[in-house]
Amino acid sequence: MRVRKRPGAEELLAAHPEYVVAGPEQWQGKWQERFGNDHPIHIEIGTGKGQFVVGMAKANPEINYIGIEMQVSVLSIALERALEEKLPNLQLLHVNGEELTQYFAENEVDQIYLNFSDPWPKKRHEKRRLTSKSFLAVDEKIIKPNGEIHFKTDNRGLFEYSLSSFSKYGMILEQVWLDLHASPYEGNIMTEYEEKFSAKGQPIYRVEARFQSEEV
Amino acid sequence: MRVRKRPGAEELLAAHPEYVVAGPEQWQGKWQERFGNDHPIHIEIGTGKGQFVVGMAKANPEINYIGIEMQVSVLSIALERALEEKLPNLQLLHVNGEELTQYFAENEVDQIYLNFSDPWPKKRHEKRRLTSKSFLAVDEKIIKPNGEIHFKTDNRGLFEYSLSSFSKYGMILEQVWLDLHASPYEGNIMTEYEEKFSAKGQPIYRVEARFQSEEV
Repeated sequence: MRVRKRPGAEELLAAHPEYVVAGPEQWQGKWQERFGNDHPIHIEIGTGKGQFVVGMAKANPEINYIGIEMQVSVLSIALERALEEKLPNLQLLHVNGEELTQYFAENEVDQIYLNFSDPWPKKRHEKRRLTSKSFLAVDEKIIKPNGEIHFKTDNRGLFEYSLSSFSKYGMILEQVWLDLHASPYEGNIMTEYEEKFSAKGQPIYRVEARFQSEEV
Repeated sequence: MRVRKRPGAEELLAAHPEYVVAGPEQWQGKWQERFGNDHPIHIEIGTGKGQFVVGMAKANPEINYIGIEMQVSVLSIALERALEEKLPNLQLLHVNGEELTQYFAENEVDQIYLNFSDPWPKKRHEKRRLTSKSFLAVDEKIIKPNGEIHFKTDNRGLFEYSLSSFSKYGMILEQVWLDLHASPYEGNIMTEYEEKFSAKGQPIYRVEARFQSEEV
């Protein structure tokens, strides 16, 4: 997502280390310690303006959420939302999603959310898609055995690609939705994009895909 | 598919044993012998009025096709199409799709087509869906290692279910189409249903799913 540079965004992030931790490498393997409890840890890769992760943290106080976003401007909007809600079970991480093994230990994460990730539609950009093989290999390292990726998008090409990519990686498609908003699925928290695109009548696609543990 | 009983349908089938073989059990393991060549064998389960299987046989003379349909009336229409085209690489089988192991030997089939299968939308009818576990187990017995099922439908619920069912069975989703007619896919042969439903603007879903051989 491209956004205009937001004045004061960096300063805002720096002023709130209680939400946007400085030197996140130091918390690798110790996130539950930082949250001060032993609740499961769910991360969102590409948190954007934070409507989803803040909404989830509000709705599920027994789960710890970490929203990961490398763009300062949008992350500062997510931070403003977090500050409004005062959520003890939310952290924001200003890092690159490609380097997650630096910030999470093996098996530290219970669940991963990908929402409306950049589709990178050109074949030569396939490796940049967050559902491509090399990203799944990183995800698999930090997620618990049998952990799940929950992915939604309005982009047909990316969803077609991702279903096949998950499957070829050896993941199991536990459930698939081809029109989420027309389905009986409950508890959906919409992202900013989702509100915009579903209002146009476009279907929202969703899948829950599970990593298979080595033993299976 | 429910259709009105067609007068003379049974007699027509009986009059053309060169297309609708009598006592098909006798050809179990010997279909290539019946076709008189060693070409691959593709079957369509639920061939209906035969537009797809006849079109495929016409387009691909180097492949042997067998259309399987248990309803006499629609199969008689498929037979009329076959008679018009005079195709040496097509056979029709008037049997129940549940009992395919009686008519095909292990590894005898190269590829399976399922087109617009009955969606059986009620949860309690799940076992009747042709993409449910027990049907896949039958398909796996008669198909070659790494053989594929090519499935298309306009039914969203059935397609959602089937993607997950294939995946949970251990099959790999090689490729998925969420709007076949809007895609660059070439060589699509439309079924009667497909023509009707796609004209209404409904997307046609398609997947190529591969059985994994035991060794993998």
